Amino acid sequence: MLRGISAPVTDTSLDVLAIGDAVVDVIATADDAFLTEEGLTKGSMRLIDAAEAKRLYARMGQARETSGGSAANTMAGLAALGGRAGFIGQVAKDQLGDIFAHDIRALGVEYRTPPSGVGVPTGRCLILVTPDGQRTMNTFPGASHDLSPAALDEQQIRSAAILYLEAYLWVPEGPRAAMGQAISMAHEAGRKVAFTLSDIACIAKRRDSFLQLIGEGAIDMLFANETEIMALAGEVDLEGALAAFDHQVPLLVVTRSEKGAIASEEGRRVAVPAAPVGKVVDTTGAGDLFAAGFLAGQAQGRGLEQSLRMGAVAAAEVISHFGARPEADLKALVA
Amino acid sequence: MLRGISAPVTDTSLDVLAIGDAVVDVIATADDAFLTEEGLTKGSMRLIDAAEAKRLYARMGQARETSGGSAANTMAGLAALGGRAGFIGQVAKDQLGDIFAHDIRALGVEYRTPPSGVGVPTGRCLILVTPDGQRTMNTFPGASHDLSPAALDEQQIRSAAILYLEAYLWVPEGPRAAMGQAISMAHEAGRKVAFTLSDIACIAKRRDSFLQLIGEGAIDMLFANETEIMALAGEVDLEGALAAFDHQVPLLVVTRSEKGAIASEEGRRVAVPAAPVGKVVDTTGAGDLFAAGFLAGQAQGRGLEQSLRMGAVAAAEVISHFGARPEADLKALVA
Repeated sequence: MLRGISAPVTDTSLDVLAIGDAVVDVIATADDAFLTEEGLTKGSMRLIDAAEAKRLYARMGQARETSGGSAANTMAGLAALGGRAGFIGQVAKDQLGDIFAHDIRALGVEYRTPPSGVGVPTGRCLILVTPDGQRTMNTFPGASHDLSPAALDEQQIRSAAILYLEAYLWVPEGPRAAMGQAISMAHEAGRKVAFTLSDIACIAKRRDSFLQLIGEGAIDMLFANETEIMALAGEVDLEGALAAFDHQVPLLVVTRSEKGAIASEEGRRVAVPAAPVGKVVDTTGAGDLFAAGFLAGQAQGRGLEQSLRMGAVAAAEVISHFGARPEADLKALVA
Repeated sequence: MLRGISAPVTDTSLDVLAIGDAVVDVIATADDAFLTEEGLTKGSMRLIDAAEAKRLYARMGQARETSGGSAANTMAGLAALGGRAGFIGQVAKDQLGDIFAHDIRALGVEYRTPPSGVGVPTGRCLILVTPDGQRTMNTFPGASHDLSPAALDEQQIRSAAILYLEAYLWVPEGPRAAMGQAISMAHEAGRKVAFTLSDIACIAKRRDSFLQLIGEGAIDMLFANETEIMALAGEVDLEGALAAFDHQVPLLVVTRSEKGAIASEEGRRVAVPAAPVGKVVDTTGAGDLFAAGFLAGQAQGRGLEQSLRMGAVAAAEVISHFGARPEADLKALVA
C-alpha cells in the first residue's frame, strides 16, 4: 500500500534503510596554507587512490578516527533520534571495518552487510578541518566501491518505509547497479525512494543519469544543498531550481547552510532558519544530520516545518564538535 | 658528563626518550550503571585479553579512536611544547599500528621501533568515560607486551638527556627486561632515568622491584600521583611518603588532581595549584600531560615551580576534551 510521505508507516520494521559508503573518517586540523600547498579546494570532496591516501596521510597532523560515510551518518542520526534505521554498505575484514560495524550497530542501526574478503581494505576519508570549521575531504573509497547487487537483502529493503540512497555511490558502476536494483525492489514493495545529491562533483559526472531517474519517477524525496539543486536543474537561482522539479519530485528538501532550509512539496514551499550554534568546529556531516532530523520528523508523522526544524537542530549539534556522528542526546535537543 | 636535572642539556639530540605501551584508545561515553553492570571500578585500569576486549567492545557505544599509551602521550605533549622527544614501543603491522605510528610522528616525535610481524594485533585501550569526566580503562596490550630488548636502539638511548619509563610496562617480563637494559645503557652514557608509577595495580604487582630499583639509585626522577606514592612508600600521608624517598630519589614529582602538584628535590618541597579548567570532559591523560609539561620546563632549564606550572597547564588542556593527546596549541597556553 502506498502512503503519503508525511504519514507514519506502521507495516514496516524500518523507517529508513540507507545504502552508502562505509568509511572511517580520519580527521586532522590543518591551516589554509596546507590546503594551498596541496592544491585542495576548501569544502570539496575528492576521490583518491591508495597511494595518494598514504602520501597525504603522512603529511597530515595527528588525527582522530570516527566512523563516517554520508548515508551512514544519516542513519546514525536517525537512530539517535529514536528512528528505526538500517544500513547497507561494504567494509573489508580489517580493523577499520570492525570499527565501522561496531559504531553503526552500537547506535541500534540494523547493519548486516558481510565484510568483503577480496583484499581491498575498508575505505577511509582523510578530512582536513580548517580553523573556520570547514572540512575538505579526501576519500579513499576502498571496499566501499566493491558493493554489488549480491550485497542486497531484498527482505530488508521491503521492510523499510523509505530507501535512502547517496549520490556518492551512484558514480562507480557496481554500487550504481546495486542501487538501481534496490530502487526496483523498494518500489515493487510500495516503498518510497529518497536520494541525496551528495556533492557537486557527483552531479557533474552523473547529471544525465540523475535527470533520467527523476524523469522516470524513481525519486520520491530528494535532498540537496542549494548549489547542488541549481547545478542539477541547470538554473542560476534557487526558485528556478525548485520550480524545475515541482512536477517531477513529490518532496524536495534543500539545505542552505546559515540561511536555513526549505522544503518544496508539489509547489508548496516551507522554509525554516538555521538553528543557533555556539561555535562551528567541524562542518563534516551537517547535510547528513540535517537529513537525519528531517527523516525522523517524517517517520514520526510530523509536518514539513517541524521536520525541517528537527533537521536544523541535528545539523547544528554535529557541527559543534569534531566528527560527523551525533555526540549529544539528539532526542533531548529536538524535544 | 653528568648535569643537574634542572639544567638544559645541550650535548644530546633528544630531551627525553620514552619507553611505553603503544596503543590506540577507543573512547566511548558510558553511564555509572554500565560500570556497575560490568563490575568495573571507576577510574581504574585493568588488563584484558582479546576475548574480553571483543566482548566489552560489542557492549560499548559508538566510539572515537585516538592514539594513546601513557608514556607516548607524554612524548606527544613534550613535542607539542617544543621539546625534542623520542619513543620506543611495539605495534603490529596493521591499521591501528599505522594510526599509532602516524600520530606520534606527525607531532615530531622520533619513533623508529619496527612493527612486529608475529600476528598479535596492535594493542588498544577501551576507555569508558562517565558524565563526571572520569575514565575507566580496559587495556588489551596486544603487541605492546611483545617489546623485547632487541627493539632497543642504544644510539637513540645515548642520544637522550632523559630516559622516561612507564610502570605499566614494568609488569610483563619481556618489556621489563628491555627497560632494565635501557636503564643500564642510559646510565652508562651519563643520562638521567625518569620513571612514572602509572597505576596502583602496577605497584601492587611490582612493589619490591620498584623499591629495589630506587634503592640501587636507578631512578633519578620519579613521577606519581598521591595514592601511588603513598602505596609505594607504605605510608598513609603524603609528607611521610615524600620523606621516605628524600634520600633515595633526587627529584620526586607528585600530582594531586584538583589539589595541584608538588615537587620534592632533596628535601625541598615546591607546590603549585591546579590550573583552571572550564569543564572536565575526560580525565584520560591528565598525569601523562602533567609529566609532559614538567619535562618541557626542565628541558628549557626552568625551575621547579615553573616546570610544575607548565605541567598543570598541559594537564588542564587534555582533560577539557576527549582523548589523551593535546588538541590546543600547548606552546601558546604555557607562554
